[in-house]
Amino acid sequence: MMTTSPTPTATAQVGVVGLAVMGSNLARNFARHGYRVAVYNRTGAKTDELVRAHGDEGTFVPSAGLAGFVASLERPRRVVIMVKAGGPTDAVIDELVPLLEPGDIVVDGGNAHFPDTVRREAALAEKGLHFVGAGISGGEEGALNGPSIMPGGPAASYAALGPMLEEISAHVDGVPCCTHVGPDGAGHFVKMVHNGIEYADMQLIAEAYDLMRHALGATPSELAQVFADWNAGDLDSFLIEITAEVLAHTDAETGKALVDVIVDEAGQKGTGRWTVQAALDLGVPVTGIAEATFARAVSSSVPQRRAARDLPAHVGTWDVADRDGFVEDVRKALYASKVVAYSQGFDQIAAASAEYGWDIDRGAMARIWRGGCIIRATFLDRITEAYQRDPGLPLLIADPYFADAVGEGVAAWRRIVSLAALNGVPAPAFSSSLAYYDALRAERLPAALVQAQRDFFGAHTYRRVDKDGTYHTLWSEDRREVVA
Amino acid sequence: MMTTSPTPTATAQVGVVGLAVMGSNLARNFARHGYRVAVYNRTGAKTDELVRAHGDEGTFVPSAGLAGFVASLERPRRVVIMVKAGGPTDAVIDELVPLLEPGDIVVDGGNAHFPDTVRREAALAEKGLHFVGAGISGGEEGALNGPSIMPGGPAASYAALGPMLEEISAHVDGVPCCTHVGPDGAGHFVKMVHNGIEYADMQLIAEAYDLMRHALGATPSELAQVFADWNAGDLDSFLIEITAEVLAHTDAETGKALVDVIVDEAGQKGTGRWTVQAALDLGVPVTGIAEATFARAVSSSVPQRRAARDLPAHVGTWDVADRDGFVEDVRKALYASKVVAYSQGFDQIAAASAEYGWDIDRGAMARIWRGGCIIRATFLDRITEAYQRDPGLPLLIADPYFADAVGEGVAAWRRIVSLAALNGVPAPAFSSSLAYYDALRAERLPAALVQAQRDFFGAHTYRRVDKDGTYHTLWSEDRREVVA
Repeated sequence: MMTTSPTPTATAQVGVVGLAVMGSNLARNFARHGYRVAVYNRTGAKTDELVRAHGDEGTFVPSAGLAGFVASLERPRRVVIMVKAGGPTDAVIDELVPLLEPGDIVVDGGNAHFPDTVRREAALAEKGLHFVGAGISGGEEGALNGPSIMPGGPAASYAALGPMLEEISAHVDGVPCCTHVGPDGAGHFVKMVHNGIEYADMQLIAEAYDLMRHALGATPSELAQVFADWNAGDLDSFLIEITAEVLAHTDAETGKALVDVIVDEAGQKGTGRWTVQAALDLGVPVTGIAEATFARAVSSSVPQRRAARDLPAHVGTWDVADRDGFVEDVRKALYASKVVAYSQGFDQIAAASAEYGWDIDRGAMARIWRGGCIIRATFLDRITEAYQRDPGLPLLIADPYFADAVGEGVAAWRRIVSLAALNGVPAPAFSSSLAYYDALRAERLPAALVQAQRDFFGAHTYRRVDKDGTYHTLWSEDRREVVA
Repeated sequence: MMTTSPTPTATAQVGVVGLAVMGSNLARNFARHGYRVAVYNRTGAKTDELVRAHGDEGTFVPSAGLAGFVASLERPRRVVIMVKAGGPTDAVIDELVPLLEPGDIVVDGGNAHFPDTVRREAALAEKGLHFVGAGISGGEEGALNGPSIMPGGPAASYAALGPMLEEISAHVDGVPCCTHVGPDGAGHFVKMVHNGIEYADMQLIAEAYDLMRHALGATPSELAQVFADWNAGDLDSFLIEITAEVLAHTDAETGKALVDVIVDEAGQKGTGRWTVQAALDLGVPVTGIAEATFARAVSSSVPQRRAARDLPAHVGTWDVADRDGFVEDVRKALYASKVVAYSQGFDQIAAASAEYGWDIDRGAMARIWRGGCIIRATFLDRITEAYQRDPGLPLLIADPYFADAVGEGVAAWRRIVSLAALNGVPAPAFSSSLAYYDALRAERLPAALVQAQRDFFGAHTYRRVDKDGTYHTLWSEDRREVVA
């Protein structure tokens, strides 16, 4: 730690380390809001480029070295790290920490895996530094014009940091899309679940598109109009909006719809996978996110897809008399499945909040996702309202609004899942979400049979519906029941 | 390390540390096969009890301390650890290692997580010791009468260890259900996938049962007969057999079917979860195992189930005219879904084998699962044959036998998934398996749309079907396509 006081040149209110597109845009966002922004990048050319190209947008304080960068910041220093998650983040932190003083705040704005954030927060707390893992969603555009920001870390740091982040975040109805999420890894956890939900949302849209394309023989541009229409209703959201844009786009080279020119293998960077892995640890079923993550893996399973090309299909044929009715059925199935995916994601947040003592306000999470981020949607207002009605709501789809909304669509949802199965169009997220819904509302599940099997081969015991205690049947002996 | 030679009392050929039911039964199994078995348990009473109750089954060499236990073993020493996975296993290893000499073999027969096995193997190899993580399946019965054994670790150790393990393992057609799986963690990895497949198998059986119960209003004892009949055909397996046994069993206290008395919440001990988490890391879609794992989680989501009890159903009514035809449809759906679950599991083994350099023979894995273990089934012979026909088979269901088998059942499978959706009976594993099947064989997947969305909001780029390279559309500018 430096023990000297800040030098008289400490004029910057916030600093950004790492000036690739995201970092650079975030620095510009701060500057445009009137903040004096210290900027530093390992390769100095990036720093120069930022100041040269955008220096007129506000006050940048460039430094060629990290020590100068730190010295240029007012106390408590607010340093936002915008470098690659993993090793690069640790490298910057290691270099930065000896230059800082107690009370300074280090923000990691990258897509860190939340256990790393928990580890870093504990390490920096030992040195009297505040470490804030902040999920930032919205891509390059968001970083520049207002992202959704999910800061975790110590609540005490939020007084010095929060107002600044709130100011540069997206705003909806005048309300910032940023709030303190909870201690240590809470911010990055919520950002991870945001991305998991995003996977589910995108897969559901893809299934809706695929079903309409097969069932109606519709062209991408016709379907662009369908999505544009949907975007005027309950489904109003960024992802529906860009789906319409993408489907309407013609490839200049071939004159075909661009979507037909793109290789049908979807990539992934890991946050969907992390979400499902964390949900498995927490025991929370996130079937929609899991199916979406696996659907991308299937699409990229090239040798398997090649081997499966000629497998027997035995499909029915689409015979849709009422085209508008079919489109409306798909829309309802999409909305119901989407509600399930969000419900599962909020369940996961609740479970993690309880497990790690984060005390996360789920309604507030829906509120800060209304703007800036990829899953921004009108629909999120309904979620905030649901948690305002009942902050301890055990299940989002059990909220009266959503129960009605799903109830209104469930018959259509059943028809669509049924037709997809009969006609051989894969709809893993639609059908998994419906199966989850039916399992949750079942009076009895065949899990009793599973538990009996477990008792049979592994003496795992069972409970009885009619009295307390744990029991075991002596299956390989005289089949008496004994107290276990 | 001890540097003295073995004492003259070193007469035991194999030793077992940890004499709870599994360890005790495994020690008896060795003794019954004529091996002199050193036995040690931290609490001496267990050792005494084993020798007292079963001393007449063979030659046991009991020791009150670990040093004496080690001294009682012939070189190279073969020590099988049968204690709880995790900390207790490490504790025993730490105590044991200083007593051993180079060339000695330590076997972990517990349900270790494979990364732990990789770590332990490397640590013991540094000391010249062989560490063998061996999956052992078959529960208490199997341990005593012949389990399926999946030993990993150094191939060199198998010469001294393998014949003994093969002898005490289950045998089918005279062939032992034990073979060297591959280096370090390969054995425990394969055991983990075995358990994951077991989850899927059990869930599929539970869905078949649940569907027939709802659709036909059949009683558990009627359905016991159905499963008994199925067990005489392609589905012949331990899990189908015990399902018939469980469903036929009447609770002595109430006179009801036991399955109706058991609380419908299925427990889990973690191997299903590990399987899915590992598959996500490998990028292998194991939707059947994932849905089965989540189905158990749903069943145990008590507050959520309570909240969902009155959600709108809007279900159709079952109207099954041809009861036998319906049962046969369910049987075919079960078989097809089961083939998918196994195909996914073998895909995961292949991916791990490639990733970790394990060179696992998938046909041999099916062979050693034919007896002793929980998923033992006639069906596994077909899998072995498939990999004999083509050791590099990219996809199990693309093997001609399985393609025919699934092809024969796929129309029925579609009908069952469709009816489950329409009538509100949750069939997540049936429907997920069918969706996976349809996705694999699809000529085009809507993953192209997902990739376009990713390019739109995150500049994640895409490839084109008509030429090499990676491209990006400037969505927020003039929508030109650029080389990325």
